[in-house]
Amino acid sequence: MDITLTRIEGGVGAPLGYLTSAVGCGIKNPAADRLDLALIQSELPCSSAGAFTTNRVKAAPVRVSQAHLRKGDLRAIVANSGNANACTGVQGIRDANAMCDAVAKPLGLKRTEIGVCSTGVIGLPMPMMRLEPKFHDLLTGLAPGRGGDVAKAIITSDTRPKEVAIAVDLGTHTVRIGGCVKGAGMISPSMATMLCFITTDANVSSENLRKAVLECVEESFNRITIDGDMSTNDTVLVLANGASGIPAIRRNGQRCRQFREALRWVMLELAKAVVRDGERVTKFVTVHVRGARVHLDAKKVAEAVCKSALVKSSWNGGDPNWGRIIHAVGYSRARIREELVDIHIGGKPACLGGLQAPTPMDELRSIVAEPEFEIVINLNQGSADYTMYSSDLSPEYIDFNRSEYAYWKQARKDGLI
Amino acid sequence: MDITLTRIEGGVGAPLGYLTSAVGCGIKNPAADRLDLALIQSELPCSSAGAFTTNRVKAAPVRVSQAHLRKGDLRAIVANSGNANACTGVQGIRDANAMCDAVAKPLGLKRTEIGVCSTGVIGLPMPMMRLEPKFHDLLTGLAPGRGGDVAKAIITSDTRPKEVAIAVDLGTHTVRIGGCVKGAGMISPSMATMLCFITTDANVSSENLRKAVLECVEESFNRITIDGDMSTNDTVLVLANGASGIPAIRRNGQRCRQFREALRWVMLELAKAVVRDGERVTKFVTVHVRGARVHLDAKKVAEAVCKSALVKSSWNGGDPNWGRIIHAVGYSRARIREELVDIHIGGKPACLGGLQAPTPMDELRSIVAEPEFEIVINLNQGSADYTMYSSDLSPEYIDFNRSEYAYWKQARKDGLI
Repeated sequence: MDITLTRIEGGVGAPLGYLTSAVGCGIKNPAADRLDLALIQSELPCSSAGAFTTNRVKAAPVRVSQAHLRKGDLRAIVANSGNANACTGVQGIRDANAMCDAVAKPLGLKRTEIGVCSTGVIGLPMPMMRLEPKFHDLLTGLAPGRGGDVAKAIITSDTRPKEVAIAVDLGTHTVRIGGCVKGAGMISPSMATMLCFITTDANVSSENLRKAVLECVEESFNRITIDGDMSTNDTVLVLANGASGIPAIRRNGQRCRQFREALRWVMLELAKAVVRDGERVTKFVTVHVRGARVHLDAKKVAEAVCKSALVKSSWNGGDPNWGRIIHAVGYSRARIREELVDIHIGGKPACLGGLQAPTPMDELRSIVAEPEFEIVINLNQGSADYTMYSSDLSPEYIDFNRSEYAYWKQARKDGLI
Repeated sequence: MDITLTRIEGGVGAPLGYLTSAVGCGIKNPAADRLDLALIQSELPCSSAGAFTTNRVKAAPVRVSQAHLRKGDLRAIVANSGNANACTGVQGIRDANAMCDAVAKPLGLKRTEIGVCSTGVIGLPMPMMRLEPKFHDLLTGLAPGRGGDVAKAIITSDTRPKEVAIAVDLGTHTVRIGGCVKGAGMISPSMATMLCFITTDANVSSENLRKAVLECVEESFNRITIDGDMSTNDTVLVLANGASGIPAIRRNGQRCRQFREALRWVMLELAKAVVRDGERVTKFVTVHVRGARVHLDAKKVAEAVCKSALVKSSWNGGDPNWGRIIHAVGYSRARIREELVDIHIGGKPACLGGLQAPTPMDELRSIVAEPEFEIVINLNQGSADYTMYSSDLSPEYIDFNRSEYAYWKQARKDGLI
């Protein structure tokens, strides 16, 4: 598709007509002064769309944001990190509503025009006494062009904020799309997998936007996996306020296709950033499955390979172990024939027709020693393809995830449990 | 069920009428003198049954053993460790056949009366030049009561041989059942998951035995997981030679039920031993799912929890993290209602109705600090149950599985690739 994207600065603050703000409340760590509460506001009415976790255990803010979206469009998003407000029952819903109310009234909006998101530890009540004194600063801090603070405020075990913004030329007008994302752990495909906020000054109807979001999520966030664990809080929220002055983008037109392509690019860029910043990740691996009989078979193979603990361990070790890859292909439940499977690593054949290929092992090892490489698995049975983005699994990941006891101790100290 | 089991010594050599032998060929490590080739022979004709991996990539010995079982009963089993003879094409089938021929002729049996098994690295040709000079010693070494050597010869990354034998009183006669198993890595439910050999001197028809084996495998080996990776070589082979002198055990009679119960006990004992000796495992965790609407829902919940990298990391850290357990319950695709879920750890409530239970955290921590504990997840929606046996996932597991490069180097040295 013929579109021209230009990277610009500013993340979710880059599109016209958005104000953002972020403050530190001590939710992540009462002792440290880290940003952990963020606000995004559109200055104009806007269209909105969302995609949420398919986990049957849903955090309170997921339930509340879903309900608000059903009632109409959002105009602002409030989000915190450090506590997921998940498995918190009726009190959790009350706290999520309180977060909405705290920003809705001062902004002159209805509660149902606020999207609310939380990310962090599961099962502990929200420390609302830490948030409440900070809403004033959060609201007075609203300013244009400060998207970077939102990206910082939503991260948890991420090592860096992740944001992107682009300008895209749609004929008569240029529109901007900005986004930020947090990821790190509990990352596995099956609906958007983390918190992701995207703003745009394009003029798109809610229905049109909803369709574009679902399609783009399927080709970006649903294609990544770090540890195979799907979160209770995964949320993607997209706001489109038309501030660019572009006339409404009509469904199925040329501009609509270009806008979707640009949105897809932004989501894929953010999704890949999530994998690259996965918990204790050292490798970014793109797995292309080709030649499957049907799309679903290609997907099953990609997921089995990208989620296998043994395959991911070998990537961590820089071992071009095609035997472990084909063993995961075999148990994927896709219809495959062992004797037809080819596996290329970094463009070099590692396995041809289910057997060791003649490429010298040291040549393959030097490819897998790199921080990023591609694997192509050709089933040679049809024409369906699927691509996924995965990481290695490191001893440090497990070390890092051994205990969340400190959170419980803090919650006890705070009188929350 | 009213049966009396007595533990006896001798593993697969304990039942009457079986000879065993094992030698070291240097397949595992040419420098070390470890047992890696084993033989089990029934002195009498016998019934036999098998269960095999459902991985679509099947090792050559799996294909050969399956073909032999379709032609009639087995009377001997030859098995090696150190090389899986998987993804080895036509040469792999030739090598598996050659292993059968090497023992069939001297024993006066047909090739199709031999079961053949391999376990070890995938994708490298069998180093037959190491096995061939040792078949003579293997055959002349056949003796009664030496099952322990077979258990030793089949292990790879296991830390210890695993075997069990029992005597069971079936009214007029006592019969014996002996078994050994190797496991350690690539252990995940969905058909038997490793090599397991079981001998018995009971008198059971092949059809009757086949049915009992499938039923017992379902309730033992299909209930365990270590790393969620299903091997290409998983095989359970059972021989029943009637040497106890007991009259044929008829289908559906009291003795048949007792025999099945005893066989199930042996398989479950071996399956649990596999988990306890999983690669770099420090915890043995029994997960009971109760109150599901249907059996399949209970199974989905148990598998999601037992395979979750985050849950397994928390077990490794001795963290009674019910939040991670319920998050896996949520993404299991079972029909669950968050607000009905109870989770007990070591008999103490950790989560009631989807919320934090009042049990002090330190009480739960002292339970999870133990090397073995039980978790009960009650969905409170019906009466279907499912139990699985799982382990933690340790940083050392990943370290251990980072590279199999040494095998490739050896194969290159041997002129095999």
